[in-house]
Amino acid sequence: MKVDGKPYRTIWLGDKPGEAWIIDQRKLPFAFEEVVLKSTEDTARAIYEMYVRGAGCIGAVAAHGMYLAAVECEVEVDSVESFDQAFRKKGEQLCETRPTAMNLQWAVERQVREVSSQDSIQEKVSRAREVAREVADEDAEWCRRIGENGLRLIQEIFEKKGGKDPVNILTHCNAGWLAFVDWGSATSPIYAAHDAGIPVHVWVDETRPRNQGARLTAWELGQQGVPHTVIVDNVGGHLMQHGMVDMVITGTDRTTYTGDVANKIGTYLKALAARDNDVPFYVALPSSTFDWEIRDGVKEIPIEQRDGEEVAFLSGLASTNDTEETEVNLVAEGSPVANYAFDVTPSHLVSGLITERGVCDANEASVFSLFPEKQK
Amino acid sequence: MKVDGKPYRTIWLGDKPGEAWIIDQRKLPFAFEEVVLKSTEDTARAIYEMYVRGAGCIGAVAAHGMYLAAVECEVEVDSVESFDQAFRKKGEQLCETRPTAMNLQWAVERQVREVSSQDSIQEKVSRAREVAREVADEDAEWCRRIGENGLRLIQEIFEKKGGKDPVNILTHCNAGWLAFVDWGSATSPIYAAHDAGIPVHVWVDETRPRNQGARLTAWELGQQGVPHTVIVDNVGGHLMQHGMVDMVITGTDRTTYTGDVANKIGTYLKALAARDNDVPFYVALPSSTFDWEIRDGVKEIPIEQRDGEEVAFLSGLASTNDTEETEVNLVAEGSPVANYAFDVTPSHLVSGLITERGVCDANEASVFSLFPEKQK
Repeated sequence: MKVDGKPYRTIWLGDKPGEAWIIDQRKLPFAFEEVVLKSTEDTARAIYEMYVRGAGCIGAVAAHGMYLAAVECEVEVDSVESFDQAFRKKGEQLCETRPTAMNLQWAVERQVREVSSQDSIQEKVSRAREVAREVADEDAEWCRRIGENGLRLIQEIFEKKGGKDPVNILTHCNAGWLAFVDWGSATSPIYAAHDAGIPVHVWVDETRPRNQGARLTAWELGQQGVPHTVIVDNVGGHLMQHGMVDMVITGTDRTTYTGDVANKIGTYLKALAARDNDVPFYVALPSSTFDWEIRDGVKEIPIEQRDGEEVAFLSGLASTNDTEETEVNLVAEGSPVANYAFDVTPSHLVSGLITERGVCDANEASVFSLFPEKQK
Repeated sequence: MKVDGKPYRTIWLGDKPGEAWIIDQRKLPFAFEEVVLKSTEDTARAIYEMYVRGAGCIGAVAAHGMYLAAVECEVEVDSVESFDQAFRKKGEQLCETRPTAMNLQWAVERQVREVSSQDSIQEKVSRAREVAREVADEDAEWCRRIGENGLRLIQEIFEKKGGKDPVNILTHCNAGWLAFVDWGSATSPIYAAHDAGIPVHVWVDETRPRNQGARLTAWELGQQGVPHTVIVDNVGGHLMQHGMVDMVITGTDRTTYTGDVANKIGTYLKALAARDNDVPFYVALPSSTFDWEIRDGVKEIPIEQRDGEEVAFLSGLASTNDTEETEVNLVAEGSPVANYAFDVTPSHLVSGLITERGVCDANEASVFSLFPEKQK
């Protein structure tokens, strides 16, 4: 997607061998900084310190990190066997940075498998570079198709409204291109509609405690020229009551094959308001986000409790001239704080799942009709 | 209620004549400062600049401001007629500070009526002092009774749970003693239960954008020794899904006689989650908060849109040694922001209204059964 008019992805290979580039997403929206990764070490730090976040993005960055690992191995070892051993070890190092990130492990394993099947060190390095690119391209392509499939839903609403007024879409958190390689999941249909000339306006939940909506989604939309308005998380219900939201599209961190959706805390409240006001509530996801084991999302998906400091402290610019953010404490000493990071929206509140293969209902039969190979 | 162990109200007369004292609530919870008011001017500034807020509190402060006005008039004029004229004028000056605050106008009108019926200047001043005290005492007494009536509901839940585990109560915004003279509305049953030895634990919604929950409610509860936990506004639904909330009690800014509840933005979302999880949702209010004219709250109550800066900027302590707060910008330049201040929870989501006369259902018949004199 575009940044100051120039096309970007969240990860890209440098002109020189042994280089990959990312955006330091921690500094958005107040500063845009490209950062070069030159080693497994650099990549591990970028993932651990959350320069990058989001399943698709982390997976692609890890795949690139494994290419950098291959370049390192080429220098460090001199036999094919010790290459494979050293390469695997660097993969483990990367996986330790965020143990719960499924895509990270998946990308590392894919690289290890592909690279170990090559005969020479030179072929291994060259294959690692190709795989890095493949992982990124696949992620971008899946997200592009999510956009294509979701576009039809927006188009329908636009026509139903008379084909003139903008379609008002509410989203929560950041399921944008910054969380993937390109396009994003929840934002992809929005970008597709905008590009197709359908007028859209996005209500952006700020998404406490980490404010990924106000910081990342609003910035993304602004850079693509998509009209949007930032609101606090409390507002969505009121807007829906007054006909000011035509549809909701969110992303998801994990979706059961029965259609229960684990996503950023607060998603469930918006789904309830959507149901109460007959507003369609869609969830956009690449199929890699499906959990094919869990039946009951509310009961079985464990909800991470994170550090209370994320709630008690918030940072922003203290002065328009500042280049560094200032962190302020919002809660008086002595008041305990809890920080539940996700919630689960039960399938009966979800109007549909927008995947790279098409849109399906949020139930087992409909999910398996799109992904028959997953049925046991 | 107590502050550092010492009993306080939000407004009190000084030992010297012509003095009233308030707490500068803008600085809570990071600093506790008492401020003396010595004139109508001082009072107008305190209301306008929001040293104090909340219907009950503003009304009582205005009543005290009118006593200060009477003391001024005693010095400034020399006939009974010009006293009444000057006194009324000072009342108008106070009313202009927050034109939509019903209680402010009500308190000023009461003072004007009572004072003009006195014969001498000396009696007028003395009556103004009495009325100020009466207004404060009445507000405190109404809130105390709300506590008494709500206590029974908490007691029932406590017993139903087995009479051992704490009752978990979720509240939104600040409907605490700081918003009234003493006790508060939503917090009054909580304080009553705590004082009666029933173990309670309060989930405190931080309440964006102005964070009255994290700043004021958490501080209040902490000062009374009531166990509580601050959460972001997104969390309540998840907690209710997992049986971690036994009841919700909120305040209200305006309640129709049919039971629709206008309150701080986000209340409606919590009411939806309560209904979805069979959690009782109560609204506590002194009957002065009823609107006896409006039938349909969702359609007819106008929702104030406030300055977007309240959303885009937030302040807190940048360092634990700071005495002044720092304000930081949370939203990048160029991203529009909207700030809807209230929402309306339809009566069918409200389990009951806790008033000074007792608890009633959120419908016309039940409300009139408690307040028969209001039926036309």
